[in-house]
Amino acid sequence: MTQVIDKLNWRYATKKFDPAKKLDEAVVERIIEAARLAPTSSGLQPFEVFVVKNPDLRAKIREVGWNQSQITEASHLLVFAAWDNITPERVNMMFDLTNEVRGFINEGWEAYRKQLLGIVAARGDQANFDAAARQAYIALGTALVAAAFEGVDATPMEGFDPAAVDQILSLKERNLRSVVILPLGHRQADGDWLVNLKKVRRPRDKFVTELV
Amino acid sequence: MTQVIDKLNWRYATKKFDPAKKLDEAVVERIIEAARLAPTSSGLQPFEVFVVKNPDLRAKIREVGWNQSQITEASHLLVFAAWDNITPERVNMMFDLTNEVRGFINEGWEAYRKQLLGIVAARGDQANFDAAARQAYIALGTALVAAAFEGVDATPMEGFDPAAVDQILSLKERNLRSVVILPLGHRQADGDWLVNLKKVRRPRDKFVTELV
Repeated sequence: MTQVIDKLNWRYATKKFDPAKKLDEAVVERIIEAARLAPTSSGLQPFEVFVVKNPDLRAKIREVGWNQSQITEASHLLVFAAWDNITPERVNMMFDLTNEVRGFINEGWEAYRKQLLGIVAARGDQANFDAAARQAYIALGTALVAAAFEGVDATPMEGFDPAAVDQILSLKERNLRSVVILPLGHRQADGDWLVNLKKVRRPRDKFVTELV
Repeated sequence: MTQVIDKLNWRYATKKFDPAKKLDEAVVERIIEAARLAPTSSGLQPFEVFVVKNPDLRAKIREVGWNQSQITEASHLLVFAAWDNITPERVNMMFDLTNEVRGFINEGWEAYRKQLLGIVAARGDQANFDAAARQAYIALGTALVAAAFEGVDATPMEGFDPAAVDQILSLKERNLRSVVILPLGHRQADGDWLVNLKKVRRPRDKFVTELV
């Protein structure tokens, strides 16, 4: 089955969205659901997703996002924001949720909770944020595939000032830090310089090594 | 279309692989292809994938991977290794490849190359590695979805000593650092404590915020 490969070949980093083409909320929800279902280290899901619908907020983000038009012209704008730290409260929240969902307390799982609490306490805030940020990118990957399956154009973007976006969206107050943004919508092909250019990836032999 | 969601719900972090069930190489190739096609920041693809087939190497990785059985018992083991730094040589390699694939040199693209060379020089080795590592997780996300579409079990794992794995696989000599490993194969359900437990994710209202 090569469906996923076909979809990945279909997608591209859309440079020009058609502001007139709005996505159904149900479609956006399915893309977000693919992000929510992404696996994460120890199941922590150490990030949140913001759907920025307010036009003023989007205009402000564009100002600190190299003035990239996708930020305001795409139908929807997702902001992936990672936990600024992996605190005991947050670890316990997820382990407690696991016990609640599964309806029982498991000795091995509780031992692992203690171990993980020790690890995150020892490695410090910055390493915890870095670890959290990586997990957000797994969800970015699943969301991108989901968008492609929906026929939705999506442009993962790191070209913005994260601290400024954190301020615009009041993320610091939530102990979150923006890491990547994802405009979603439909391309306006006749204004998009990238749409007809070849996708560039290193060939397999420069990307994969077999150790036999 | 909810196919991606169905596949994400099907998958789980397999704890026990059936060592007798080997994957066809063609299937593994399609999963790797989904990783290769993943989008990355500035198109750098700042990571590589290793397919560790040598049993001794896998045994050694297991020793520094909390003795987790998946490392040796899964059919295949992928190691995602990020660039330890984003050097001018590496940036130029990808920009040159782009010019080669597309068959022309674009003024705007060349201006962006200069800008990016300035950014990576300014932010330093550690920040460059951190940025590279995040990109590898996008590919992890697309590979996970691809595996699920193939009906292949996959367990993303961070529970290993990256420096030790780097040594085992001689990654330092390649200026790479291991960030996450991905055993692939088929579950041995009767030995897997997790297979019948409910998937745990925060509910939508604890994960998504709309800013209207």
